[in-house]
Amino acid sequence: MKNSTAVKENDTQIDIIGVAERLFQEVGFQKTTVADIARELRMSPANVYRFFSAKAEINAAVCRRIFGEIEAAAEKIARSSGPASKTLRSLIASIEDLNARRFLSDRKLHELFETAHNENWSITHEHYEKMDQILAQIIRQGMAAGEFKAGDAELAAILVRSACIRYCHPRLMVECAQDPEPTTDQMIDFCLAALA
Amino acid sequence: MKNSTAVKENDTQIDIIGVAERLFQEVGFQKTTVADIARELRMSPANVYRFFSAKAEINAAVCRRIFGEIEAAAEKIARSSGPASKTLRSLIASIEDLNARRFLSDRKLHELFETAHNENWSITHEHYEKMDQILAQIIRQGMAAGEFKAGDAELAAILVRSACIRYCHPRLMVECAQDPEPTTDQMIDFCLAALA
Repeated sequence: MKNSTAVKENDTQIDIIGVAERLFQEVGFQKTTVADIARELRMSPANVYRFFSAKAEINAAVCRRIFGEIEAAAEKIARSSGPASKTLRSLIASIEDLNARRFLSDRKLHELFETAHNENWSITHEHYEKMDQILAQIIRQGMAAGEFKAGDAELAAILVRSACIRYCHPRLMVECAQDPEPTTDQMIDFCLAALA
Repeated sequence: MKNSTAVKENDTQIDIIGVAERLFQEVGFQKTTVADIARELRMSPANVYRFFSAKAEINAAVCRRIFGEIEAAAEKIARSSGPASKTLRSLIASIEDLNARRFLSDRKLHELFETAHNENWSITHEHYEKMDQILAQIIRQGMAAGEFKAGDAELAAILVRSACIRYCHPRLMVECAQDPEPTTDQMIDFCLAALA
């Protein structure tokens, strides 16, 4: 009995995040209230507050869900076989693609990520730490295979992510939208040359 | 006679920019009005408007003056003799230092640069184009000397600037202020390895 209650509670939490994400896409996260989310789910605002003590927690949870999607895609690519340089290229290109797609098609949702970065939400740091670990894992494999020169894989991961920040930072994506160069491929070539 | 009038007009323009910059440092550019600037210079707002048709033009002129300072420092370093890798390291470190100093000591003035980037003012693009030219000149010399591998120096300059954006972009400087790594030196090593 206790377990089924826990499952139900978890489902409700997921539903709240799902509805919040849809409303953030439609009207923007700043204009969406807890009352709006509750209304869509035919529950009371008080019930929403049982799961999230403040609207800010819902904002972070939606952000977290999408970061989780990016991390899952990155982990899947990191597990693929083949040369580390190919895996690294495919990982960076795929993150850029996921970010660019959200930026182009969900401008309202993109604002949530801009605010998360502007206000230094802790989940953005956790996300970048996770991405660094995934990058380091690929670089470590490349170093072990003699494809990259031996060295500090964790540091190399941070350097690659910093060099590529223009393609995944929500604010820079807006600012650089009209700049044709450097393309992702050019920047990946540059990073691979630095690692080789 | 005409020349001395032109010199005087130019002096007044420089005075307006100088006073504006000081007020931007003291109270912030958003809180500084044209009337405040005129009062400090003991002139009428109408006289200020003879030189700048709107407050936005004064904002851009202050930004432009400081960008000019960075460009002059970069050009001086670019003219120095010695290996291109040494010149490049010293150039990037010096830009980072100029930006960091403003960021740390003039937080109010720093807001002007954040806004210039946020709102995509054309002077920021002109500044980055100028910096790219200076970087390309050093890289071209390194390529000619066989220090860097031959290739497209203009593209290499854009890649180096993009990779180092964390150290000169006003928004990223705020966001990354607590991140110890990568240091400027680590990033320069990474870029030099990519060019070598």
